[in-house]
Amino acid sequence: MAGKVVLHYFNGRGKMESIRWLLTVAEVEFDEVFLTTREQYLKLLSNGDLMFQQVPLVEMDGMKLVQTKAILNYIAEKHNLHGKDLKDKLMVNTHSEGVMDLMEMIMMLPFAADVKTKLDNIQNKAKDRYLPVFEKALSGPIYLVGGRLSCADVQLLECTLMLEEKFADILAEFPNLKSFQGRMTSIPAVSRFLQPGSKRKPQPDGVYVKTIMEVFDIKSPFL
Amino acid sequence: MAGKVVLHYFNGRGKMESIRWLLTVAEVEFDEVFLTTREQYLKLLSNGDLMFQQVPLVEMDGMKLVQTKAILNYIAEKHNLHGKDLKDKLMVNTHSEGVMDLMEMIMMLPFAADVKTKLDNIQNKAKDRYLPVFEKALSGPIYLVGGRLSCADVQLLECTLMLEEKFADILAEFPNLKSFQGRMTSIPAVSRFLQPGSKRKPQPDGVYVKTIMEVFDIKSPFL
Repeated sequence: MAGKVVLHYFNGRGKMESIRWLLTVAEVEFDEVFLTTREQYLKLLSNGDLMFQQVPLVEMDGMKLVQTKAILNYIAEKHNLHGKDLKDKLMVNTHSEGVMDLMEMIMMLPFAADVKTKLDNIQNKAKDRYLPVFEKALSGPIYLVGGRLSCADVQLLECTLMLEEKFADILAEFPNLKSFQGRMTSIPAVSRFLQPGSKRKPQPDGVYVKTIMEVFDIKSPFL
Repeated sequence: MAGKVVLHYFNGRGKMESIRWLLTVAEVEFDEVFLTTREQYLKLLSNGDLMFQQVPLVEMDGMKLVQTKAILNYIAEKHNLHGKDLKDKLMVNTHSEGVMDLMEMIMMLPFAADVKTKLDNIQNKAKDRYLPVFEKALSGPIYLVGGRLSCADVQLLECTLMLEEKFADILAEFPNLKSFQGRMTSIPAVSRFLQPGSKRKPQPDGVYVKTIMEVFDIKSPFL
């Protein structure tokens, strides 16, 4: 170990939020440096801190980590949240990739031209493609894979909370998911993270979008 | 083991090609079932074979695997192509995610409305953001991570070959990458895969695009 974990990202959810969630559940404390100006970004670039010129950047264990999924896998592996053997790890990754696909769609909403169409698409895909899979996996077992907590559970909790922000009663047809959410939110670290004043970030707003566009020098929304 | 590995996908590269490459280097033989009609896809769906209604689907070790990155990690882990310890695995994943980001851009080209703009963007990002990272990692070491072959090397080889198809002299400024490519293509399994008649797929053409649109019932290109 080489000091405290430090996250470099915008003051918003984006790709960092799943990392914040996973560190929280792993009970790893972290500090945050918020990117607010293009100068900060250019300095990280000129320091050679951003391997692919992108954030998230996570300082951890004496390294400067980039690439969200690589970071998540590292934290999960290190903290025993990645499945106990090869096959459980495969299933954790499979569930996790599905959850991340769904969360990615929600994450991109603030940059969408036609939000209504995108929202409808997300709701349909959530109800038809993704939630039924997790509902079934949780019919009996209390965790998605191998009878124990993994990063896939943490991401699924994050995802269901994001979905409910957009579609308040989306879990009505998925009672196992609702119970799962209840169990997960009673984990002390999770419960604390859900309190006001924690490092959990709110839904993206205009300031968040404007900051990203300024820092990356983007002239118009991407989508 | 439960019989031969069977890949279910279109008769084209897409998301399956990296899996074909990795199986090849791991010297795992595989059969292929090509999706050519919507009926085949609907049958896979109704059989419950596609966890998230998506291909690639890989039958392997008695399981039906989906989600490209989960599949790649499983094969890599199983065949000792994923780094020897936690930190090497992290670096393999980090490099791999970068390569996959770049390959994904090329993969989406056949569905793009403005191919010229997208091609320019790919060339710029390849030269400015991605290739310099790999060039530096290979200044001395013969593999990207930890002095031994990993899935990241296999994906990087695939990626450099794809780039050269679009931009013939793109490696001219990256001599280490060119040497790496030479070393990798002399691996017997790779050399065989590069011969005509192997299971390696050609660049996407109109038939490939049309088949995907029919199978998934998509009315117009996505991008």
